[in-house]
Amino acid sequence: MQTKAYAAQTPKTPLAPYTIERRAVGPNDVEIDILYCGVCHSDLHTVRAEWPGIHFPAVAGHEIVGRVSAVGSDVTKHKVGAIVGVGCMVDSCRTCPSCAANLEQYCEPGFTGTYNGHVSGKGENTYGGYSAAIVVDEHFVLSVTHKEDQLAAAAPLLCAGITTWSPLRHWKAGPGKKVGVVGIGGLGHMGIKLAHALGAHVVAFTTSESKREDARKLGADEVVVSKNADEMKAHAGTFDFILNTVAASHDLDQFTSLLKLDGAMTLVGVPEHAHPSPSVGNLLFKRRSLAGSIIGGIQETQEMLDFCAEHNIVSDIEMIPMQDIEQAYARMLKSDIKYRFVIDMETLKAA
Amino acid sequence: MQTKAYAAQTPKTPLAPYTIERRAVGPNDVEIDILYCGVCHSDLHTVRAEWPGIHFPAVAGHEIVGRVSAVGSDVTKHKVGAIVGVGCMVDSCRTCPSCAANLEQYCEPGFTGTYNGHVSGKGENTYGGYSAAIVVDEHFVLSVTHKEDQLAAAAPLLCAGITTWSPLRHWKAGPGKKVGVVGIGGLGHMGIKLAHALGAHVVAFTTSESKREDARKLGADEVVVSKNADEMKAHAGTFDFILNTVAASHDLDQFTSLLKLDGAMTLVGVPEHAHPSPSVGNLLFKRRSLAGSIIGGIQETQEMLDFCAEHNIVSDIEMIPMQDIEQAYARMLKSDIKYRFVIDMETLKAA
Repeated sequence: MQTKAYAAQTPKTPLAPYTIERRAVGPNDVEIDILYCGVCHSDLHTVRAEWPGIHFPAVAGHEIVGRVSAVGSDVTKHKVGAIVGVGCMVDSCRTCPSCAANLEQYCEPGFTGTYNGHVSGKGENTYGGYSAAIVVDEHFVLSVTHKEDQLAAAAPLLCAGITTWSPLRHWKAGPGKKVGVVGIGGLGHMGIKLAHALGAHVVAFTTSESKREDARKLGADEVVVSKNADEMKAHAGTFDFILNTVAASHDLDQFTSLLKLDGAMTLVGVPEHAHPSPSVGNLLFKRRSLAGSIIGGIQETQEMLDFCAEHNIVSDIEMIPMQDIEQAYARMLKSDIKYRFVIDMETLKAA
Repeated sequence: MQTKAYAAQTPKTPLAPYTIERRAVGPNDVEIDILYCGVCHSDLHTVRAEWPGIHFPAVAGHEIVGRVSAVGSDVTKHKVGAIVGVGCMVDSCRTCPSCAANLEQYCEPGFTGTYNGHVSGKGENTYGGYSAAIVVDEHFVLSVTHKEDQLAAAAPLLCAGITTWSPLRHWKAGPGKKVGVVGIGGLGHMGIKLAHALGAHVVAFTTSESKREDARKLGADEVVVSKNADEMKAHAGTFDFILNTVAASHDLDQFTSLLKLDGAMTLVGVPEHAHPSPSVGNLLFKRRSLAGSIIGGIQETQEMLDFCAEHNIVSDIEMIPMQDIEQAYARMLKSDIKYRFVIDMETLKAA
């Protein structure tokens, strides 16, 4: 199936219209007309080949919401006309211990990414959501039950949402727990909303005084400007869990020292340049942990989407036409977005 | 009570005989004639002031086994004549959440060290086990039920034993678990023995080919020479838990990459120079944790001692007279000891 898309032909060329081939709908496949696609920082790293192993042409986008346009003969999970989502994964081995435990994101041979993922056995590249349609195995297609007017803002739940939800759940954020969220961007703003909705006492950490009020509106019970040593010190040894969404290299010790006995801080971003080596003493003297987490499994992604629909949680977004993607990237690099761009895919038809 | 001891008068002077004052036995105190005292690397760091905040004269030693010579009027735990042990702590606040949870090693105001610990409210220094006798609150005195001829070798259980036991138990080393122990020294050799006795499949990691056979004798099911990349690679992604006893700065990533999904590596030593900053990607892609742990609580120390007595577990030791302590330190610095020096305190009488 010939499908309109926006692609980077090389790491140096701006995204531009390009026609990709989508596979024919197989017995287990769901074909989706894409309505909205969120813009993740990973998209930018990919189209500019800032990560190793990027294949070109590259079609990014893994925060996809759309409508089912066709289903294969064996599909039972989704019906034509249903609103569905696709996140960062479109396939995995299905048999390794991680897949068996519904943790496809940790698939041992590696999951197939929604974009820049080799199609197993064929060696072909996968193309993401900056396109008119996508064909995905039903197992990796999620139900989206948000209201019609929330669908665009629900798109970022497929990556930013699950990336913060999964660690919050794994480390048991909830009533009676004091949870920190470091960084108030695309990921962090979802972390605050979700931790708050889960019933935790949420403290947001930001480097900018100007984000204090915003963080409160997102659901933070307290906001700490991390440059203020006294403000930080007042929270020493009190956190059960800290979700650190900042990928840029920074001092981790200022946050681990805020954890109580057996507390954990979990990183969800890989820094381009290594963080300063964390203090081992900081870990030892309160049996603290420093951990990492990536996105989430399909089952927990569905749980998160259902939870968000029920609690009226979506991302704070700014909608853009496909044609403005390069300007959006430029603004993302300046953190000039509250908090996620979402592409209106209707605009691709004019491309 | 005037008590013979061996003390460092300054960081530059060798240990020498010195008379210290032990407090009169209070209602909750136990007075102990010290029979044996293990020699821990912390002793050396202390007497040479390689750590900040060391008070002089310094009397080291926190792997103490002795016989109760007197008890206070309110003491119920121990009787005169009983064989007892004292580890790294002689007091704590007793009321903070950590103390209430029997984790006095994480006492929030800080525990009182057996040596170089301020006596709460008095500001006096504490003196350790390189002495003829010690007076300790009964709560911090352990029962030692090993056989008479095992008592010297039981002494290192009070620090090296509990420092490895506590994380092994906390991270649930046992049947069905694959557990790594990095480093085969005073701590590591106990880690191997204890993990083996707890029923885990134990893999010892060493940098020296020559320790391969020794590690097997200690109870390792497998031994990996960590310099051999292929040997390491064969274990990638397979460990539930790794106990890392090496304090010297080293590459942590070569070990975290051996952890399976949700695996943890726990450090029990603070490096003098920081480890190279650990790979965040290594943590993220299998939700791995890097953690720290210090010694253990009094309750778990007693559990460990009872477990060791029942399973005939002691440290591998070389007994020395008090007068040879400086030579022992020199050999420790060359790792020329299998695996712990223990001072025969009878020799102090001749000092």
